[in-house]
Amino acid sequence: MTQQQSAGVTEAAGFRASGVTAGLKASGKPDLALVVNDGPLQVGAAVFTTNRVVGAPVLWSRQVLTDGVVSAVVLNSGGANVATGPEGFLDSHRTAEKVADALEISSGDVVVCSTGLIGVRLASEKLFAGIGPAVESLTADGGPDAAQAIMTTDSVPKTAHVTVTGPDGTAWTVGGMAKGAGMLAPALATMLSVITTDAVVDAARADAALRAATRATFDRIDSDGCMSTSDTVTLLASGASGLTPEPGAFEEAVRAVCADLARQLVADAEGASHDIAVRVVGASSEDAAVAVARAVTRSNLFKAAIFGNDPNWGRIIAQVGTVPEDVAPFDAENLDVTINGVQVCRASGLGEDPTLLDLAATREVHIEIDLHAGGAEATVWTNDLTHAYVHENSAYST
Amino acid sequence: MTQQQSAGVTEAAGFRASGVTAGLKASGKPDLALVVNDGPLQVGAAVFTTNRVVGAPVLWSRQVLTDGVVSAVVLNSGGANVATGPEGFLDSHRTAEKVADALEISSGDVVVCSTGLIGVRLASEKLFAGIGPAVESLTADGGPDAAQAIMTTDSVPKTAHVTVTGPDGTAWTVGGMAKGAGMLAPALATMLSVITTDAVVDAARADAALRAATRATFDRIDSDGCMSTSDTVTLLASGASGLTPEPGAFEEAVRAVCADLARQLVADAEGASHDIAVRVVGASSEDAAVAVARAVTRSNLFKAAIFGNDPNWGRIIAQVGTVPEDVAPFDAENLDVTINGVQVCRASGLGEDPTLLDLAATREVHIEIDLHAGGAEATVWTNDLTHAYVHENSAYST
Repeated sequence: MTQQQSAGVTEAAGFRASGVTAGLKASGKPDLALVVNDGPLQVGAAVFTTNRVVGAPVLWSRQVLTDGVVSAVVLNSGGANVATGPEGFLDSHRTAEKVADALEISSGDVVVCSTGLIGVRLASEKLFAGIGPAVESLTADGGPDAAQAIMTTDSVPKTAHVTVTGPDGTAWTVGGMAKGAGMLAPALATMLSVITTDAVVDAARADAALRAATRATFDRIDSDGCMSTSDTVTLLASGASGLTPEPGAFEEAVRAVCADLARQLVADAEGASHDIAVRVVGASSEDAAVAVARAVTRSNLFKAAIFGNDPNWGRIIAQVGTVPEDVAPFDAENLDVTINGVQVCRASGLGEDPTLLDLAATREVHIEIDLHAGGAEATVWTNDLTHAYVHENSAYST
Repeated sequence: MTQQQSAGVTEAAGFRASGVTAGLKASGKPDLALVVNDGPLQVGAAVFTTNRVVGAPVLWSRQVLTDGVVSAVVLNSGGANVATGPEGFLDSHRTAEKVADALEISSGDVVVCSTGLIGVRLASEKLFAGIGPAVESLTADGGPDAAQAIMTTDSVPKTAHVTVTGPDGTAWTVGGMAKGAGMLAPALATMLSVITTDAVVDAARADAALRAATRATFDRIDSDGCMSTSDTVTLLASGASGLTPEPGAFEEAVRAVCADLARQLVADAEGASHDIAVRVVGASSEDAAVAVARAVTRSNLFKAAIFGNDPNWGRIIAQVGTVPEDVAPFDAENLDVTINGVQVCRASGLGEDPTLLDLAATREVHIEIDLHAGGAEATVWTNDLTHAYVHENSAYST
């Protein structure tokens, strides 16, 4: 994680950001962030949770995105505004209106993101009162403040950027910020991210790049298999660099920033003692590889074993075997499993001596599963299942 | 659970059983069980795990079941014989042969079940040496001994039976035993069950009754979403009562015994502090209801909240929302959630005050989710996610 000192959303030209305390958090820590696109372009794209139960901010922001124009993103911690009914939707709508009034833009171009407990109305008067100060605090180097204000149980703010400099010395940048304590606790650690770029791209290209990037990054971290009702990743393009990237280069830069932020989410998973990469190779397709990797990353038995520094490969192949044949063809008698370079399972049976492994020595654990069924591969990251996970998630709303 | 004092597999006439110590368990506790069908019928049916990775005993026993004839079931704890390659299959084959030789029956009519750690060869010489004593110990009231010998982390043996007496005083019985510590740890607590009956039924009817019963009972307990590589439920019919049950009555008796045993598995889940019934009503189909209930019972966040006695209904509707529309149609804005009789969520928003609930007061927690989408319903049982679960499953094979 080399990018944590990045200014995030204000690394790219054409953006201002801020982070202030509106008073939504009992702790008095910053809880309201604002990112504004000063153009000349006002291009926006976003991906949302695929949960059918979604928060009011997602309902609102989906509408905002229909025309591919986004001028600002307002994000609060201290309340998710989910399962709050028509009144909750009105809270999101009014939040957008108050930001729009202060910035003299259209409320229909303001994305709203909220994170916190489900089923509780926002302290909307505090939120509305904080919007003035948030607008007044906007600066071209406010990215770190914004990244701070969207934290919930995150222990560190998460920012990243990639700058691509051409042979003539001109450069364009993709930057971003994210929050989510490894999604170990999505009810309070909903994943929110804002990505900005000063490259010249249109809405269709921004949308395609963001979808391709999130599919291979944020969608492949899976701390506890629980899907949030609020996950939102927004990409804003200002065009302020005046540069139109080569085909592929822009997609790659967005992917790299999303990958960096996603890896930071896993690394900051509270309660986790290991970051686990489950890489599936020899698959018939990338989708098959993802399905097998996900089956493993969702196994409590496997994750508890890794917490115990136990290279229990039986629990790995037992999970591989749960994937239906039409999803991932493979010979169940010919699976290899390698843990941190030691091939503990060969042809679905005993391999090298697991006692060669010392899982306690490193935070990262690398699992490689060879299906011997083709040339495709994929990696899904997860964390171990720990006492701290149980503690944190059994003692949240009460 | 009213049937724990049942003799289990020897409640029905025509069966003998035993449980002895072969020395597979380091503890020296009984670890080898035998159930023999003395006829006159030798009808057998079985359902196995749907995992593609299965143990040698499952590979062997699937072959045994192809002709619908089963004379005996031999079960060992102290080793699952999974991922043990051709040598492991030979161990299962030889176990069946040695039982067959001692009983003067065909090895092709002997079902073999094993439970314990994956990826470790059985101590087969000890196992083979135990078969003689197991045969010598067979008695018509040996059901409780057999139920004891198949225990792993189970704290109590699990037996049940139903006797149906006709107006003329004649009676037929379905009895059974099961093991599995709530499937909270299937790598060591693989679910094994043997059901016996003295009713006169043919193989097709036995198979149909067993499949219908397991689908609505054993398949609807889901402690941690992890599918075992060894799960086996075998039904043996001796016909010794001479009675042919009414259509429906036999199916109902098998279902009742399976339901009783399944509920005992949930109640004995080590590390669990709550048994949780997730009942989904108002579904468009039973399959839809099961899919929604399963989504909830597999949520670590929900299960950790229940451990914390926190009626966090937001985590329930967030899980309901993960079920695709083609699987379970419903209006995501119109979900009701009732916990122990208190409707905490109404129309996907705030309902009655959750502080009316005292989840700490009872082991059972009843969740009812109304989808308002039809007349079908289903219930899936699970347990809470506790520190003891993490402890037990992080400290098993090492």
